[in-house]
Amino acid sequence: MAKQRVFSGLRPTAESPHLGNWLGALNQWVNLQDEYDCFFSIVDWHALTTSYDDTTALRENTLGAAINFLSAGLDPKKSPIFVQSHVPEHVELHILLSMITPISWLERCPTYKDQMIQLGKEGKDLSTYGFLGYPVLMASDILIYKASVVPVGEDQAPHLELAREIARRFNYLYGKVFPEPQIRLSEVPMLPGIDGRKMSKSYGNFITMSAETEEIKEKVRLMITDPQRIRKTDPGNPDICVVYAFQKIFNSEETSKIEQSCRSGEIGCVECKRILIEKMDQRLTPIREKRKELANNPGLVEDILADGAARAREVARQTLEEVKEKMGLLMPKE
Amino acid sequence: MAKQRVFSGLRPTAESPHLGNWLGALNQWVNLQDEYDCFFSIVDWHALTTSYDDTTALRENTLGAAINFLSAGLDPKKSPIFVQSHVPEHVELHILLSMITPISWLERCPTYKDQMIQLGKEGKDLSTYGFLGYPVLMASDILIYKASVVPVGEDQAPHLELAREIARRFNYLYGKVFPEPQIRLSEVPMLPGIDGRKMSKSYGNFITMSAETEEIKEKVRLMITDPQRIRKTDPGNPDICVVYAFQKIFNSEETSKIEQSCRSGEIGCVECKRILIEKMDQRLTPIREKRKELANNPGLVEDILADGAARAREVARQTLEEVKEKMGLLMPKE
Repeated sequence: MAKQRVFSGLRPTAESPHLGNWLGALNQWVNLQDEYDCFFSIVDWHALTTSYDDTTALRENTLGAAINFLSAGLDPKKSPIFVQSHVPEHVELHILLSMITPISWLERCPTYKDQMIQLGKEGKDLSTYGFLGYPVLMASDILIYKASVVPVGEDQAPHLELAREIARRFNYLYGKVFPEPQIRLSEVPMLPGIDGRKMSKSYGNFITMSAETEEIKEKVRLMITDPQRIRKTDPGNPDICVVYAFQKIFNSEETSKIEQSCRSGEIGCVECKRILIEKMDQRLTPIREKRKELANNPGLVEDILADGAARAREVARQTLEEVKEKMGLLMPKE
Repeated sequence: MAKQRVFSGLRPTAESPHLGNWLGALNQWVNLQDEYDCFFSIVDWHALTTSYDDTTALRENTLGAAINFLSAGLDPKKSPIFVQSHVPEHVELHILLSMITPISWLERCPTYKDQMIQLGKEGKDLSTYGFLGYPVLMASDILIYKASVVPVGEDQAPHLELAREIARRFNYLYGKVFPEPQIRLSEVPMLPGIDGRKMSKSYGNFITMSAETEEIKEKVRLMITDPQRIRKTDPGNPDICVVYAFQKIFNSEETSKIEQSCRSGEIGCVECKRILIEKMDQRLTPIREKRKELANNPGLVEDILADGAARAREVARQTLEEVKEKMGLLMPKE
């Protein structure tokens, strides 16, 4: 049986993602590569829906995002990795789907007014036609590959619901073409920041997926552990320890051993941190090195993107032809 | 100096246009072919903005419209003739322009609410995202060719104004790419229907551009002339005579002679009609014959459309590259 199709995209950003984001997106995608037929995209048109007023860093961010995708371990041999705007079939489908999408569906989308108000406070004017149509574009991104699985966060659930409604309406009006894409919620445990709050770039409590060894050492040393534990021999409580939360991710094979040793006061926080540093560095070194290597070879990255776009277009073109055929458009003579 | 660019489009319809419409559009375009660098398009995406709910005749109408274009005398060697959806660059520009187009510009467009109400009475639900964005698509059609002249009717003036506003906004935000397209209002005299009212398919008072000789004869015979004129020797009033309105179009070289003979009662209505029939038949015979010839050779029409799309795409691609460059998108590596 053919593998199920997955589509997922991230907006272009050259910054190295912090480990919370890495766990929720790129690292999760790496784990989907074998089980599914995946399409991974840097969605530059989406970025323009909210950032049309300043595009000076767009090019650099798009290339940088590709470097992040690849260094996190996405394998372009397994899954096409491409820039959204390099596959114009997305917008050909978008214009067709826009004909059957009621404006009310878009206006009632909870993120629409929220984001408009939120970003409006930052001085952005989002009362544009493109921003209103963002969910139609997202539906096109997914449906052009007939993806049935979309790994996104819960905040994207209303957009997925809209994509299903658009798919249903198309299938009803013109005949069945699209599967109804289902959300695949991440089952990843929450990774706290080093101070125990939510990891966030704005709190300054983060570690990036490409942190240098020295930075890892320093930040792990600063991590909050059980504050009740004064002496090494005091029994610790791993449930409230940031280091333990990281051990679960980076040292899963030893997690239960460490938990026991902590609760019984056999292992001290210093030793526990030393082990974590070693494990994190082991895990992140290949990412960091790959990232540097690719940053020095933008030509290679562009080749990978060109190859990804070509492979994505092959699939997208097939869907588009089927769509145009069903909708009754005159096909161009080859 | 390079010729100015003209873009013009018509929605797909296989029906032969009546002479009023032919004069206002296709025949006018024929006259522009030498003076301007023209792009003529059958705008099938536009048709979908209002007719997404029934597309059964779309393919036939698209091909039929191409036959009308060609039989009316548009020369594919002079100007590319193509189907809008065969040039995907239009929608690539459309998605980019949608990012900078305020919804309020679209909502305040006078045709928007009018058409929604008008067609709503016919049971059409036009509260769709695609219908709202129709003027952005029209702006893209024009701007992708950097057309500076657009020959349309006065009813399209608000859309042209919107296209200029979008062009200005783009040029302001990202740097100058687009000229501001100007409307070129038709200077064609109004052609009445055979009963003296506005020529209209719904009034049944029309003659099509491909009418058979017998039909021309019959309809000219039915044309209303000056009702005050009883006998041939009575002086006539050409200003209120339908036949005279047609003479001005189809027999322009003899118009003043006929006017004089009519006012002086030298020429009778029967003779005047006989002359008109001859002139109309002379003018319309090549159209009628070309139309039949092409209808029997759809493969040739499709070849012409394929060639037109290829030539249009060459120009469209250049503009799109410039647009993407200015907006800062990462260009695909060739």
